[in-house]
Amino acid sequence: MTKKKPLILVTNDDGITAPGIRTLIEVMNTIGDVVVVAPDAPQSAMGHAITINDVLYCNKVNVAEGQPQQEYSCSGTPVDCVKLAVNELLDRKPDLCVSGINHGSNSSINVIYSGTMSAAVEAGTIGVPAIGFSLLDYSLEADFEPTKKYIELMVRQCLDNGLPEGVVLNVNFPKLPADEIKGIRVCRQANAHWEEKFDKRTNPLGREYYWLTGEFINKDKGEDTDEWALEHGYVSVVPVQYDLTAHHAIKTINTWDI
Amino acid sequence: MTKKKPLILVTNDDGITAPGIRTLIEVMNTIGDVVVVAPDAPQSAMGHAITINDVLYCNKVNVAEGQPQQEYSCSGTPVDCVKLAVNELLDRKPDLCVSGINHGSNSSINVIYSGTMSAAVEAGTIGVPAIGFSLLDYSLEADFEPTKKYIELMVRQCLDNGLPEGVVLNVNFPKLPADEIKGIRVCRQANAHWEEKFDKRTNPLGREYYWLTGEFINKDKGEDTDEWALEHGYVSVVPVQYDLTAHHAIKTINTWDI
Repeated sequence: MTKKKPLILVTNDDGITAPGIRTLIEVMNTIGDVVVVAPDAPQSAMGHAITINDVLYCNKVNVAEGQPQQEYSCSGTPVDCVKLAVNELLDRKPDLCVSGINHGSNSSINVIYSGTMSAAVEAGTIGVPAIGFSLLDYSLEADFEPTKKYIELMVRQCLDNGLPEGVVLNVNFPKLPADEIKGIRVCRQANAHWEEKFDKRTNPLGREYYWLTGEFINKDKGEDTDEWALEHGYVSVVPVQYDLTAHHAIKTINTWDI
Repeated sequence: MTKKKPLILVTNDDGITAPGIRTLIEVMNTIGDVVVVAPDAPQSAMGHAITINDVLYCNKVNVAEGQPQQEYSCSGTPVDCVKLAVNELLDRKPDLCVSGINHGSNSSINVIYSGTMSAAVEAGTIGVPAIGFSLLDYSLEADFEPTKKYIELMVRQCLDNGLPEGVVLNVNFPKLPADEIKGIRVCRQANAHWEEKFDKRTNPLGREYYWLTGEFINKDKGEDTDEWALEHGYVSVVPVQYDLTAHHAIKTINTWDI
């Protein structure tokens, strides 16, 4: 008896033609039946945005002739793509959703801005195990080759073991050649934040505008964080939850005079 | 000696002219010095999106003549507004950031889609105590009057007591007249999700498109949840954290063969 192949939904936030998602599709084709539903244009830093005041277009496309996956290009955000895939396009619930490979880091606080991770979180909320993958290299020419064996390992382990309820995974890769990556570390999210500097300019009509430019500030010295792991040559894996309740703080707020 | 008035940053995701934010400004003017930095157009369901591939415009505006607050209208998302306010517009760090009052619920899983709450979370990440307020009434004609005394109470308590590190508050109001609101409950986020139904149509050019329409599914029967509190006539207060690490799951993932 042949074991049925898992159905794997692939999405991202850099757009359906980005090199990162093409690598992820290539690896997923060795593991399961692949359906791609991804944005038709870059949607970086879209967080968990959804499209409620506009319509969504979604077209079957043939980005890579001769390859086995089905592909759909969608006008919406990464989270829209997951909703559309699971509720409208697929005839059964996928066994896994993978998102990425993002061009750039989604470690630490970046997880909350990330379209890549929001797609994974959305899948989690509707009961689909999910992993977001990101490489610490923003370049379109980034070398995704060293990530492949770790992606395959993580996906096979996830399919075999399942994920704890309410949890998805945030996997980040250091920008290193294959032989310098030391392995995988399961971590917590480093306690870091962005300090912004706005670049103020004047447009040709004389109107002032701003570009957002930020500096990443990590004061967390813990050796159990994703930032530590990545700086020391490891692939970081953070289990991420979407129950945002600060359970420990309920008692404190209950001492207020309210 | 006169105690210095607190500096309060006000934002929202329904846009600077929405009735909800006008009510919030009115209440904040009784407590502190108020600066409003809010989107120039509705930005609902934008989650934690930020503007990185486009420019931001921000103008000083005079929405309500004769009122004491300073107001800025910004072309970006709610999170952009907070970043711009704290890093560019204000000459000192605000003592508090309040966001809302949102026209519609941000209880339970809605917190992850919410521009209102993402603005509060962003303030939290940069060390500004923050509260998001939402009323369970999507109407532009919603009656915000009953929310006022609870908003004032929560804000004064927050200024007096501070918030635990890494925590902001998600406050939702039931759609009820003042005399039917039973009080305040500190809660956890209910474990609920959205099941989407896509409304498929054809545009005048013959091209198919979709509207996202969802159904909120709450299978969480706990009496300690925000959904329970709201259904039973209470104002719900959920302490929200932006460390998304599922700490309990680290041990589980470490049992994987990775």
